Amino acid sequence: MAQASRYLTGDKAGIQEFLDKFDVFLLDCDGVLWSGDRLLPGVREAIEFLQSKGKRTIFVTNNSTKSRQEYHKKFTRLSIPCTPDDIFGSSYSAAIYVSRILALPTSDKPKVFVLGEAGVEDELRAEGVSFIGGTDPALRRDITPEDFDNLADGSALDPEVGAVLCGLDFHVNYLKLATAAQYLRRGALFLATNTDSSLPMSGSFFPGAGSVGFPLVNMLGRKPLALGKPSQAMMDAVEGKFHLDRARTCMIGDRLDTDIRFGIEGGLGGTLAVLTGVNKREDWEKPDAAAVPAYHVDGLGDLKF
Amino acid sequence: MAQASRYLTGDKAGIQEFLDKFDVFLLDCDGVLWSGDRLLPGVREAIEFLQSKGKRTIFVTNNSTKSRQEYHKKFTRLSIPCTPDDIFGSSYSAAIYVSRILALPTSDKPKVFVLGEAGVEDELRAEGVSFIGGTDPALRRDITPEDFDNLADGSALDPEVGAVLCGLDFHVNYLKLATAAQYLRRGALFLATNTDSSLPMSGSFFPGAGSVGFPLVNMLGRKPLALGKPSQAMMDAVEGKFHLDRARTCMIGDRLDTDIRFGIEGGLGGTLAVLTGVNKREDWEKPDAAAVPAYHVDGLGDLKF
Repeated sequence: MAQASRYLTGDKAGIQEFLDKFDVFLLDCDGVLWSGDRLLPGVREAIEFLQSKGKRTIFVTNNSTKSRQEYHKKFTRLSIPCTPDDIFGSSYSAAIYVSRILALPTSDKPKVFVLGEAGVEDELRAEGVSFIGGTDPALRRDITPEDFDNLADGSALDPEVGAVLCGLDFHVNYLKLATAAQYLRRGALFLATNTDSSLPMSGSFFPGAGSVGFPLVNMLGRKPLALGKPSQAMMDAVEGKFHLDRARTCMIGDRLDTDIRFGIEGGLGGTLAVLTGVNKREDWEKPDAAAVPAYHVDGLGDLKF
Repeated sequence: MAQASRYLTGDKAGIQEFLDKFDVFLLDCDGVLWSGDRLLPGVREAIEFLQSKGKRTIFVTNNSTKSRQEYHKKFTRLSIPCTPDDIFGSSYSAAIYVSRILALPTSDKPKVFVLGEAGVEDELRAEGVSFIGGTDPALRRDITPEDFDNLADGSALDPEVGAVLCGLDFHVNYLKLATAAQYLRRGALFLATNTDSSLPMSGSFFPGAGSVGFPLVNMLGRKPLALGKPSQAMMDAVEGKFHLDRARTCMIGDRLDTDIRFGIEGGLGGTLAVLTGVNKREDWEKPDAAAVPAYHVDGLGDLKF
């Protein structure tokens, strides 16, 4: 028998029981709090309600385009109460991985070629990791015949680069993909902030970080080590930073294959799905569901009374 | 026992015997004739030799960035004897498919959104197929918040578009991928000129047409109908145009999964691999080889005496 997911919308006693189980809520952002720049209904009030009950709210997002500081501006603009320290993004998770895990005692931190936006760069910089690529205007142009030659013979490559880090890049182009491909062909580590295939925006779906970097996966036949949800590298980093009690922590998200799996594989006390993003009820009622949330509500705004 | 592939380099009697079996040679271009803009050794002489023996040489390429006319300029510049009619590209194959196969008696030719270069556009135009996208300068820019809204609500979309055709696009960007994704989400047919994962250039490898369009495959979980090699839609079109006797025709190429498979699945009399491109001898000596060529030479230049 498939696991059942308890539906809490409109169920005051159920919500009370749910709240009593947890001290900390890890909340995904895109598709849970907002879609693009549109706040979803009742979200602000639900966050305020959780905080008024003494719950800690931590925002755990795979979106790598913004740093924590930039994210915090968005929260402030949308009047969602939080501090920059309450935000944990996949860019930050990736920067910590490169800086603290890859920088073994016997080796320097590798220089990173970034396919991504300023958010990745800011977090790498904050962790003292050298990088190239990213938002460099010199790469925002068409590829030339000379580029093909200089990439092929390596003269356009930086010999210090030891890793390629892919995030969501709204300025992806052939030159950047070709450059990343050459580093990977020469043995660079292949890392990704996250592998979400789609990005919820404006009430629809657009290519996500996992899709933008997929030309490299297809060309090279190698998958990146993903450092966002559901990677437990991210859970370990969240736990290390916030010293949370996993049994008293609940993950709230819209995606079964990232958010809900992240919570289940991380051994959290619970998971709650919202239906305002990528996945719907039928997705976890299938026999081959990516994960089944313990609880669900129509939208985060329902999580109050 | 694995099939053996006969090695002809330096074997004059073997080459004579090989030549006697065939009237027509279908030749791949990238990795066989040239790498990027560099002609491979002895290629011109080998083509002249084949033609001097009364053989028909037809150039069958998956590269979709150039139309037959543009390709012909490259042949002329490199002094390889051929006419535009001797060239058969995946752009042409795709245009024929949209124009003649999709345009059933009961339906109009669908308008096509193109992810690709001028080669695709020229061939669609020559077949009377309407299209948008492609090299349109209006799409060579960054995506804006308004674009997300207008793509999501459909106001930026052309309701006549019924198919998305992906080729190799050196000007790929997020706006084009996002636009293509929205047409596909609304039910447009998903076509590809070809699905080569890599492009041999400057003696190395770069992202190919199949990789550039892969963000859409990953995001939508749908694969395109590929109209280049090894698709037999292309073989049917080649046969229809040149009225060739398949038993007396040989496919020459560097890739097992496109060229050699194309020849074998098309029931041609023979296949010959060259080692100047993607695949090497060990690739077909593996138990799970994509295809085994009947013959091979180090390079096309060896096919003369």
